[in-house]
Amino acid sequence: MAQKPSIPKGTRDFSPLEMRQRNYIFDTIRSIFKLHGFLPIETPAMENLSTLMGKYGEEGDKLLFKILNSGNFLEKADTKEEDYKKWTAQISDKGLRYDLTVPFARYVVQHQNEICFPFKRYQIQPVWRADRPQKGRYREFFQCDVDIIGSNSLLNEVELVSMIDEVFTAFDIRVQVKLNNRKILYGIAQTIGFEQNMIDITVAIDKLDKIGLEKVNEELLEKGLTQEAVDALQPILQLEGAFTAKIEKLASFLSNSELGLKGIEEIKEMFSTLAVLPLSCEYELDLTLARGLNYYTGAIFEVKALDAKMGSICGGGRYDDLTGIFGLKGMSGVGVSFGADRIFDVLNELNKFPIDIFSGSQVLFANFGKQEQNYCLTVLHQVRRMGISAELYPDVAKLQKQLSYANTHRIPFVVLVGEEEMKLEKFTLKDVEKGTQTLVSAEELITNLKIKK
Amino acid sequence: MAQKPSIPKGTRDFSPLEMRQRNYIFDTIRSIFKLHGFLPIETPAMENLSTLMGKYGEEGDKLLFKILNSGNFLEKADTKEEDYKKWTAQISDKGLRYDLTVPFARYVVQHQNEICFPFKRYQIQPVWRADRPQKGRYREFFQCDVDIIGSNSLLNEVELVSMIDEVFTAFDIRVQVKLNNRKILYGIAQTIGFEQNMIDITVAIDKLDKIGLEKVNEELLEKGLTQEAVDALQPILQLEGAFTAKIEKLASFLSNSELGLKGIEEIKEMFSTLAVLPLSCEYELDLTLARGLNYYTGAIFEVKALDAKMGSICGGGRYDDLTGIFGLKGMSGVGVSFGADRIFDVLNELNKFPIDIFSGSQVLFANFGKQEQNYCLTVLHQVRRMGISAELYPDVAKLQKQLSYANTHRIPFVVLVGEEEMKLEKFTLKDVEKGTQTLVSAEELITNLKIKK
Repeated sequence: MAQKPSIPKGTRDFSPLEMRQRNYIFDTIRSIFKLHGFLPIETPAMENLSTLMGKYGEEGDKLLFKILNSGNFLEKADTKEEDYKKWTAQISDKGLRYDLTVPFARYVVQHQNEICFPFKRYQIQPVWRADRPQKGRYREFFQCDVDIIGSNSLLNEVELVSMIDEVFTAFDIRVQVKLNNRKILYGIAQTIGFEQNMIDITVAIDKLDKIGLEKVNEELLEKGLTQEAVDALQPILQLEGAFTAKIEKLASFLSNSELGLKGIEEIKEMFSTLAVLPLSCEYELDLTLARGLNYYTGAIFEVKALDAKMGSICGGGRYDDLTGIFGLKGMSGVGVSFGADRIFDVLNELNKFPIDIFSGSQVLFANFGKQEQNYCLTVLHQVRRMGISAELYPDVAKLQKQLSYANTHRIPFVVLVGEEEMKLEKFTLKDVEKGTQTLVSAEELITNLKIKK
Repeated sequence: MAQKPSIPKGTRDFSPLEMRQRNYIFDTIRSIFKLHGFLPIETPAMENLSTLMGKYGEEGDKLLFKILNSGNFLEKADTKEEDYKKWTAQISDKGLRYDLTVPFARYVVQHQNEICFPFKRYQIQPVWRADRPQKGRYREFFQCDVDIIGSNSLLNEVELVSMIDEVFTAFDIRVQVKLNNRKILYGIAQTIGFEQNMIDITVAIDKLDKIGLEKVNEELLEKGLTQEAVDALQPILQLEGAFTAKIEKLASFLSNSELGLKGIEEIKEMFSTLAVLPLSCEYELDLTLARGLNYYTGAIFEVKALDAKMGSICGGGRYDDLTGIFGLKGMSGVGVSFGADRIFDVLNELNKFPIDIFSGSQVLFANFGKQEQNYCLTVLHQVRRMGISAELYPDVAKLQKQLSYANTHRIPFVVLVGEEEMKLEKFTLKDVEKGTQTLVSAEELITNLKIKK
């Protein structure tokens, strides 16, 4: 009995149709990265577990896919051990990469002497997480990361917003870019006297949109804030109005926090530089934006599609000490990650994939026999030399079947060659959509296809 | 103490330079696949072990990277078990893909109802093998596979040779394509009365180039062939001359083997169709070509670079029953795999990477301060709108440092803006190579960069 083939849950095959859609996304993003002078790198799928463990919290450690050591792994294992985590450490020393950020930090440290800083890099590769699979969440998915490392300039933040704008303009997706600064969040925690709870406060603020003000306040009390501190925080949670008004209220709220005021200064500079650029997207300061990852220390970004029901489709921020975990201190960086899977869903929902990405070859030469086939081969070769995708149907099959192949693959032209055409040294060119047929010479055939390309 | 970062042995980081070289290889190959109407697919890095095990021989099973099951894998394991292979089966049910062929076969069977046959697919993805790492052999490497499945026509074989020719012409690498047919090899084994030893015979013939005739004969005797059979085989091992002469001798040698004669017929048809095409490469029938993989049943291919010391850089063949292992019988296919890593080495050795793949941005705007930077930003934006890669140095740094950045990244133009330029509403455009500087307007700047692009 043959095996019934399947793939691991949470993973996907990408068919030619999906590949074209995905390549359209990756190519578009990549072309804009290149326009801005970002350089590509790639890192191995497998990293040492020592590189990965402890970088994503306890939950992250669990969700890492671990690779069994090769050969007789039992030799080095204590088979009396009953804790599976300790077992893991004995029989596995490699894992699949969980994101592109930690491998990038590892790369920068490992190759610091070859790198010319500031280093503008992009990286588009799959990552793996042993999450419970569900709609829109996969165990293998792609990340598109772009970072500048080794420069403190806020111009980098501005460039990232500009790139976000260009990417989503290219996709014809209207977006809103939300901006905030971790220093402001820290300043707020400091001002209400609970800087040690900054993470709790930012996590709670982050949930404001989802669970509402009341629940956020409850959560803050649970986390150990006093009622007084929670009360003091209310003006911040309910801050509204235009940028200048918000920022003034904030500045006065933060007047005793040096770091908070630094954050205000940074966000003001970002906004004033952004104003110079002719951007299409909306962007705004959003103090409820906190983002989960703890390594952010300055600007944070999040992008939402205005016309689709979808969470954030791009996000990131500045981190002052990402490479510190690998021994390289004082290397500040900033970056964002584009969510390819979510962008895919948004493009689908809004029906924004360009039609031309779906077309296959430009022309199919039908096959009616050995003589006809050889007659077609040289012209076929010339057609391809002109950069026109072309195929000769490999089998001598019924015309109906060959036309159906052309149809399925959206091939707009079919060339028909029988005895008559060979005698006249011509080709019958059929326009599939129009249903018209024209008798043409080899030269005319190529000219016709070139025009329609 | 910080960790000293490293990556697992046999894996590689790809720096921007290597990425550009590799992308040049992949893009070139991909563009020719597309010209021939091949469609891309991708499959997950992880496959079920049931899909992979037993497909690559006992050695292959060992070399598969296996992934530890998530969660408490000990729960389902018999900790008294002492055989690590049985242990593996209990704690791992996924592995990393070992090649692209088995996942492709699995894909075809799993998606057979969505596929329009003949199915022309290409796939460019990494594969993983727990081989002992050595020079030129990695534990993670890329394969570029192209196959036509669901068609018996020899036109497919011809198309593959034509694509090989086009790929290496594009790379400007002179190659020799060696062709053979497994049916001929089977016929030979049959003719000398040892068809059950066909694998041994082909493996031995395969080594002719490496170990010489004498050792091959010894090996055949060791494998159980009689002296008589080995003697009978000699004319085949020493077959020389032009194609027609060879094929005639072979045909008379194989006159009692139906399958052998079928092989002769196939190779003749292939050569006569190939003769119609204006190919640049040498191609020849090589009876010593056997190729290791057992699933080949018809034509086999191998490509060698004429001007570099390097083994085969591309190879493949026809398999009549690849999908049979997954329950779909009678689906014949043929394909080749391009060895990206070896092609990389050959291009390096022959110094054939085009120079233009190494250039980064077209222009760097130097940064002398906040005012100057904002003055540059709008023009920078316009330059990019024209499709010209451009950067603004993010930090206000010494000119020397900024020029050195341009130099490292092979950026041919630098724009300098100081008070004088701002007053005149102009830009100083520096041609790095020539060392010349010209004062230009924004329009002239863009025109200049467009011409040089």
